[in-house]
Amino acid sequence: MKVLVLNCGSSSIKYQLRDMEKDEVIAKGTVAKIGEPGSYIEHETGGKKTRREAVIPNHSEGLSLVMKAMLDEEHGVIKDLREIAAVGHRVVHGGAAFTEPALITPEVQEKIRECIPLAPLHNPANLAGITEAKKQLPEVPHVAVFDTAFHQTMPEKAYMYAVPREFYIQYGVRKYGFHGTSCRYVSKKAEEMLGSSSDRLKMIICHLGNGVTLNAVQGGKSVDTSMGLTPLEGLIMGTRCGDIDPGVIFYLHRRANLSVEELDKILNKKSGLLGVSGVSNDMREVIKGAEAGNSRCKLALEMYAYRVKKYIGAYAAAMGGLDVLVFTAGIGENSPLMRGMICENLEFLGVKLDGEANVKTVKAEGVISSPDSKVKVLVVPTDEEKMIALDTMEIAEKVKKI
Amino acid sequence: MKVLVLNCGSSSIKYQLRDMEKDEVIAKGTVAKIGEPGSYIEHETGGKKTRREAVIPNHSEGLSLVMKAMLDEEHGVIKDLREIAAVGHRVVHGGAAFTEPALITPEVQEKIRECIPLAPLHNPANLAGITEAKKQLPEVPHVAVFDTAFHQTMPEKAYMYAVPREFYIQYGVRKYGFHGTSCRYVSKKAEEMLGSSSDRLKMIICHLGNGVTLNAVQGGKSVDTSMGLTPLEGLIMGTRCGDIDPGVIFYLHRRANLSVEELDKILNKKSGLLGVSGVSNDMREVIKGAEAGNSRCKLALEMYAYRVKKYIGAYAAAMGGLDVLVFTAGIGENSPLMRGMICENLEFLGVKLDGEANVKTVKAEGVISSPDSKVKVLVVPTDEEKMIALDTMEIAEKVKKI
Repeated sequence: MKVLVLNCGSSSIKYQLRDMEKDEVIAKGTVAKIGEPGSYIEHETGGKKTRREAVIPNHSEGLSLVMKAMLDEEHGVIKDLREIAAVGHRVVHGGAAFTEPALITPEVQEKIRECIPLAPLHNPANLAGITEAKKQLPEVPHVAVFDTAFHQTMPEKAYMYAVPREFYIQYGVRKYGFHGTSCRYVSKKAEEMLGSSSDRLKMIICHLGNGVTLNAVQGGKSVDTSMGLTPLEGLIMGTRCGDIDPGVIFYLHRRANLSVEELDKILNKKSGLLGVSGVSNDMREVIKGAEAGNSRCKLALEMYAYRVKKYIGAYAAAMGGLDVLVFTAGIGENSPLMRGMICENLEFLGVKLDGEANVKTVKAEGVISSPDSKVKVLVVPTDEEKMIALDTMEIAEKVKKI
Repeated sequence: MKVLVLNCGSSSIKYQLRDMEKDEVIAKGTVAKIGEPGSYIEHETGGKKTRREAVIPNHSEGLSLVMKAMLDEEHGVIKDLREIAAVGHRVVHGGAAFTEPALITPEVQEKIRECIPLAPLHNPANLAGITEAKKQLPEVPHVAVFDTAFHQTMPEKAYMYAVPREFYIQYGVRKYGFHGTSCRYVSKKAEEMLGSSSDRLKMIICHLGNGVTLNAVQGGKSVDTSMGLTPLEGLIMGTRCGDIDPGVIFYLHRRANLSVEELDKILNKKSGLLGVSGVSNDMREVIKGAEAGNSRCKLALEMYAYRVKKYIGAYAAAMGGLDVLVFTAGIGENSPLMRGMICENLEFLGVKLDGEANVKTVKAEGVISSPDSKVKVLVVPTDEEKMIALDTMEIAEKVKKI
């Protein structure tokens, strides 16, 4: 079965065509700068990349170019669109309505629309992608896979904020969490690696990418997660501040005369690693800066690691202990330095790194704890697209049987 | 030596006259509703309370009434104001300038004034109290004891927020922490009780009052604390929300059309236990509600305990382990139920409560962990006024020697 995975942003479409039996990415690419000057499509297959500039005014045109690229005589990978058996759509926000992937029906589209206020930038783009893809591939099942769904098993005490209850009832103010597809993939993969899927297994996933999620997973279910109503809560990220005294917002509004809109932008786009280091939102650059003696870069690394460390302690307390600690995503997969800083001094929790294994395990899966470490520490490369494709295939097969 | 302790709020003066040799409170009381209708002074000595209504337009008049009450022929405790050897002033915000109590000089007053933007409600009242008390008791040393000072040993990685650095440089945006005087008193007291003051001792103090502070104390020094730039950060409190996705503020501003000022007020005055339970900001009432089956009260208790538990885990991770856990302040001293909920399932950290000792230890100091608990769990009644008096005496004695 060939499954097309689509991830539509406000001005971009990322896609992958996957062969499920061979577990292979047949083709992948990006349509960028939709509706902007300089729009283009980049298409990759068999290790060869082609890039073509084109006027791409909207998602409809963007998606047509994706189909053309896949059918292309020279760079194409299929002869007929009917070879695509199903389409999986990444949808950012499913609110409390979606606890698992869903076959896209008009009702499902309506519910995704209802979640727009929760993700005003993402859900409209996701919906545009769904609408267009259904037009261009009307015969096949389309499946929505939500970034929030995995976390909908959190207990009330973990997802409620201590604010007046009417904000929850009227406006849905609560923690939803994000990166759920990645965390679900990684937690399953970790269970496979350990050959263990006890319903008591206590796992913490450190998804350390440009966005960061720490996720407490107990018996395969998400019980707490660091992002909240929005992706701003939690750890230090590339440009997002993560946890902060909410009083800082009120203080800066009064003291620095900044509007809510300005503060929103500053805390989302100018803070995090970038704000602290003054150098970059990219961990690699910050590490380089620290190595060259830049004290702000050093501080950024220390703060980053310190706060991840505190979340590990907090989630261990939430679950009453810890069996498995997993690192994933850009920084988690590729930075032995940061993994080492995070795990330092966590012996009391039973975490003991194998220094050599840590240094060697880059862009690859592996165990990086020492054999006598009570807590198994793993590196598991994440693959959201694969998870979306698997979910899509599962639902598509169910649909066929009916 | 007799020391007068003053805690001046914007419309109140709380006072204690203490005999330091006898370790006794000779007299104490409150001047309330200063500058408002219905102002009065309540004075207590030898177990007898007297209350007198009076027109009290300002702190000057309020303080005169305090002096009169202490000299009063019937209810008084001294014959001459010269019996008061020193005055200790509680000052809320000392910013980064004050790391310990300070003899009040014009320079110190100026520095307290410079901290007004950080505590716009409290520092002006504290300063008014200082100015008036110096007028009425000009011959004796006056000492400022800061709520923030104890936490100024925090490392940079713990006190910096991941926001653009210019907010720190220009506006002092960082974590300062509060309840420092209480935490210092309690940490010393706990060391005394344990007969241990190793510079490696890892202690977490749970100051659970109407305001809540969790404090990580390593070797007697504060290394992290839950309140931040303002007292809004951290745990769930009577009416304060504590930690929350900063995105919630931006979301509610857009979605519910609430101004920054309204949101400030809601998160400080209408949230916390009150917002979640819908019943009360008072833990005793919330517990009653939960016992009567009110599900919102139950949720409030669960959220409260869960979040304290997560901070305990986080601070254990910050220090690389835990030796002593201390409960103090209203809820910490008086609620075995809440202490039990917090300590449940923390065996992995070495915390094991003695159920009976927990239930028995109310409004009293004691050890409530079982004998085989790796972590000692203590209840230590706090006494900020005593700490302020001790600090004041120490500085007054140094001044005398010069």
